[in-house]
Amino acid sequence: MPGLDNVLDALDNDLDAALDRLKGFLRLQSISTDPAYAQQCLDAANWLTSELSDIGFEAKRHDTPGHPMVVAKSPNQSDDGKRLLFYGHYDVQPVDPLELWARDPFDPVIEQQNGHDVIRGRGSADDKGQLMTFVEACRAWKKIHGHVPPNLTLFFEGEEESGSPSLVPFMQQNKELLDADLALVCDTGMWDTQTPSISTMLRGMVGEEVTITGPSRDLHSGMYGGPAINPIRVLTRILAELHDDDGRIMLPGFYDGVDELPDAVKAQWQSLNFDEAAFLGDVGLSKPAGEPGYNVLEQIWSRPTCEINGISGGYTGEGFKTVLPSVAIAKLSFRLVGNQDPEKIADALHQWVIDRLPEDCTASFKSKDGSAATVMPIDDPVFAESLKALSDEWPKPAVYMGCGGSIPVVGYIKDILNMDSLLVGFGLDDDAIHSPNEKYNVASFHKGARSWARILDAIQ
Amino acid sequence: MPGLDNVLDALDNDLDAALDRLKGFLRLQSISTDPAYAQQCLDAANWLTSELSDIGFEAKRHDTPGHPMVVAKSPNQSDDGKRLLFYGHYDVQPVDPLELWARDPFDPVIEQQNGHDVIRGRGSADDKGQLMTFVEACRAWKKIHGHVPPNLTLFFEGEEESGSPSLVPFMQQNKELLDADLALVCDTGMWDTQTPSISTMLRGMVGEEVTITGPSRDLHSGMYGGPAINPIRVLTRILAELHDDDGRIMLPGFYDGVDELPDAVKAQWQSLNFDEAAFLGDVGLSKPAGEPGYNVLEQIWSRPTCEINGISGGYTGEGFKTVLPSVAIAKLSFRLVGNQDPEKIADALHQWVIDRLPEDCTASFKSKDGSAATVMPIDDPVFAESLKALSDEWPKPAVYMGCGGSIPVVGYIKDILNMDSLLVGFGLDDDAIHSPNEKYNVASFHKGARSWARILDAIQ
Repeated sequence: MPGLDNVLDALDNDLDAALDRLKGFLRLQSISTDPAYAQQCLDAANWLTSELSDIGFEAKRHDTPGHPMVVAKSPNQSDDGKRLLFYGHYDVQPVDPLELWARDPFDPVIEQQNGHDVIRGRGSADDKGQLMTFVEACRAWKKIHGHVPPNLTLFFEGEEESGSPSLVPFMQQNKELLDADLALVCDTGMWDTQTPSISTMLRGMVGEEVTITGPSRDLHSGMYGGPAINPIRVLTRILAELHDDDGRIMLPGFYDGVDELPDAVKAQWQSLNFDEAAFLGDVGLSKPAGEPGYNVLEQIWSRPTCEINGISGGYTGEGFKTVLPSVAIAKLSFRLVGNQDPEKIADALHQWVIDRLPEDCTASFKSKDGSAATVMPIDDPVFAESLKALSDEWPKPAVYMGCGGSIPVVGYIKDILNMDSLLVGFGLDDDAIHSPNEKYNVASFHKGARSWARILDAIQ
Repeated sequence: MPGLDNVLDALDNDLDAALDRLKGFLRLQSISTDPAYAQQCLDAANWLTSELSDIGFEAKRHDTPGHPMVVAKSPNQSDDGKRLLFYGHYDVQPVDPLELWARDPFDPVIEQQNGHDVIRGRGSADDKGQLMTFVEACRAWKKIHGHVPPNLTLFFEGEEESGSPSLVPFMQQNKELLDADLALVCDTGMWDTQTPSISTMLRGMVGEEVTITGPSRDLHSGMYGGPAINPIRVLTRILAELHDDDGRIMLPGFYDGVDELPDAVKAQWQSLNFDEAAFLGDVGLSKPAGEPGYNVLEQIWSRPTCEINGISGGYTGEGFKTVLPSVAIAKLSFRLVGNQDPEKIADALHQWVIDRLPEDCTASFKSKDGSAATVMPIDDPVFAESLKALSDEWPKPAVYMGCGGSIPVVGYIKDILNMDSLLVGFGLDDDAIHSPNEKYNVASFHKGARSWARILDAIQ
């Protein structure tokens, strides 16, 4: 009976053809945010639907008010296998500034970069190259086993780079179609070129805009300076109190639901030997500014933050203008971990501001949809199995990573489809996603496909 | 021998002709800030030179790299009279938005407004109407006495509304020409339509822009939030400490040179029965925000301030962007009183910021030329004499006023020509200077000229 090794061999033998297929996919200029590229987005959806049908999936394009979804299902079911939902996106970022590209972003080629073969082109890493690792694994599987892996649903959107307006409605309306036991999401990275990873902790987010209003109009400080309350001064005092001298966040109840890292995870992160000095030095810094007692990785992956992302008020042009402004505005975001409740934190901020308002000032708020942090259940055997499968493929053992940012779809999968996600990806820090000269290492593509074959073999 | 009464009678009899002359002056579109009006500025300088020559002054236009100065001197000297330098400006503000004017800004007319005759037109109050009060007083004086008042120098610039770039160099190069015992400046206002005033205290100013730099580039808060220092947070903490809870300014040495108001002045200001509730209520406020223990007028006229006039950093557009910015900027100004030293205060601010910088942050500063406060020597008998002269002319006794802002020329006169200034003007709060539909009350113009005749008679 043919087995995993045959599938891996098939992937090796088929690499050139697989790269040609990826190139064809990359030539489609599926920039979702620009309406001028709507037809190319449709072409990309059709391309995927056709590829998946050819491999043996029951694939269908689902039109939406925006760009289409593509959903493909294994025709074969197995009673004992895990039902898996694989998510990816076929749309890409815009390419401007075009003059910073060394070549046409939509004419992909294989080149050398820092001693590695890379495939260069917009979308090569984000996310066409990544999603094709899974598709190629399925193709090889079919070649060897005569059928695609059972119990799979592949789900691709075309609006990830433009805010995914159709995603939540589509998921809500197609819960049954997308139902599975576990989601696989291939939109993350490796620890380094040698070390694959599973991202098991994503920080959540709360975004809040605070507007403080004082006088009913802008005033002249020669005329009113002294008796008139200045909303910038009020705002800076309110913001300044949000952290104590150690950088700890002072909002009442803020740390509810923030747990200390399990020792095992902490030890594993420490074993990564993360180069803090290089990470900070790269952006002109030398000292971690987060809470004392946590190293840089812990601060990014496992600790919550309160950040002022923007502030404005009064005259901000060249030179001076002695205005006492009517309003001052700050945009704040909180990165959340563990079980912190986005709504409670937004409420706590509102109350914090209101409690500190002096007479004659008012506050108003605009909120961005909050999202809780994601903490994967790594005690589920599927995580250890996947970790082993990845470790078998790559030079160094696979690791669990955190992620300082959010991946919104992971939250939607959890909230709407009630599924955890296994986040495995093969991107690298130097892939230049969203930037000119995006690339994806050929090793990421090829060994990524082999990794998925191993994971499917292990967990299904 | 003819006396003051004859001069006053002459002013009364000549009012219609004086208004016609003012209208002619107002028709010249001497907008100094717009190069398209350079010829009109020249015309206004020539018009003034010619008028002053006709009256009997030795008048001369002095060309500069910008718009010309006009200097006119009494041909007659008197050994016992005070030598006086009268300052005014013949340039005017731009008129846009033109659609908000009820009529052509440069076609002046006499109209009624709130029961008062007013002359409407750009520059009617600021400063053509005001300066002509003095010129008309001299004209009537000549008519009665056969000569203009002795020991006078009249000094007019044409760049007051565009930053006076030529003023300081001209004063420095013409100290002898402009030399006198006392300056008269007619660019201020009355307390109300019934009550003339002398402005004896002007606040000075220090302007400082503070830039805090943290990371070498903007960062993503998902990637760096926690370990990366946020310069907005640093800036808000530094600014928040500048005032204590009572609004007292915490910069070391800030209050050096700030004296308590003399009891007599305090009592006089109190007698003005200033309507604090209306003043604050007009701009949506109800409670004076300055230091406790000082009323609103005292806070504006006699107390120093530290204001944040502008703040910016990070993303300030619509919606949210989770950026950790590289820089944050604040524009600050300090209004100074008494003998506060602008340079020491700028230095204290720099040190204050530097002392509070955390590791990995730097600060840079841009300074605006500072100016000390002006406190007139009201013990000089000329002040009491002028107060009495004004009180003789108007329905209510004249008062000493402060001014929350600065009048730069007063500082230059002090620093370069070593002269105090007597600030007398007849503007009113509703004159709409710098705004559409500027006007000057005919009573301000006529009784203003009569006031100058009385003052000249009293102090020379």
